[in-house]
Amino acid sequence: MLIRIEPESDTPIYAQISNQIIEGIARGFIQPGESLPSVRAFAADLGVNMHTVNKSYHQLEQKGIIRIVPKSGAIISSPHDFTEVSYNRLKDDYKPLIAESLVLGLSKKQIQELVTALIKDIKEE
Amino acid sequence: MLIRIEPESDTPIYAQISNQIIEGIARGFIQPGESLPSVRAFAADLGVNMHTVNKSYHQLEQKGIIRIVPKSGAIISSPHDFTEVSYNRLKDDYKPLIAESLVLGLSKKQIQELVTALIKDIKEE
Repeated sequence: MLIRIEPESDTPIYAQISNQIIEGIARGFIQPGESLPSVRAFAADLGVNMHTVNKSYHQLEQKGIIRIVPKSGAIISSPHDFTEVSYNRLKDDYKPLIAESLVLGLSKKQIQELVTALIKDIKEE
Repeated sequence: MLIRIEPESDTPIYAQISNQIIEGIARGFIQPGESLPSVRAFAADLGVNMHTVNKSYHQLEQKGIIRIVPKSGAIISSPHDFTEVSYNRLKDDYKPLIAESLVLGLSKKQIQELVTALIKDIKEE
């Protein structure tokens, strides 16, 4: 899986890495149970600081996407590890974005269409 | 409008402020054309650093939610100021969240229901 870093982006680099890993899992490029590279190897590969990769892995762990297992590294979790806590956090993450969409003038229908198009894009590519 | 800061939250304080302002506009508590408090007054009111409020206003300006007008301060934009640029940025913001929802095992239907419930919550409260 190719991770592309955009240094000019408003999204911090650690979040760019997390987002692309999440998208890679969603698209099936990485499977539950598989390991991510070690922090050191990944940082060298991407040409970023180890601290940045660490922060990204920590974020993924907090989101319940990976488990950090001593000696084995970062393992992709299974969807059935999904908890009520993750669901509520996800809801909290959607809320400001939906409020923003409404403020920027999108209708309910337009938001639903945007979401449906993005699901389709990720699931079918 | 009451802004509540949660110091323990994973969301940075400046983003908590932005998110609640956006939600306040979405819910109709603040109208397009109205002004936000001055950075100094708002910071004093919330008990946060002026730099934090500044960062929040800057983020809202970048999102196209407010315009910073010299001497007049921060003015809420109208939805018809909405541009293709904002739409594409919004799409970029939804994408990692939708990927994450899929990875955490939500079905297409569950994501659509979550989004619809949040729209209803914001529009009707």
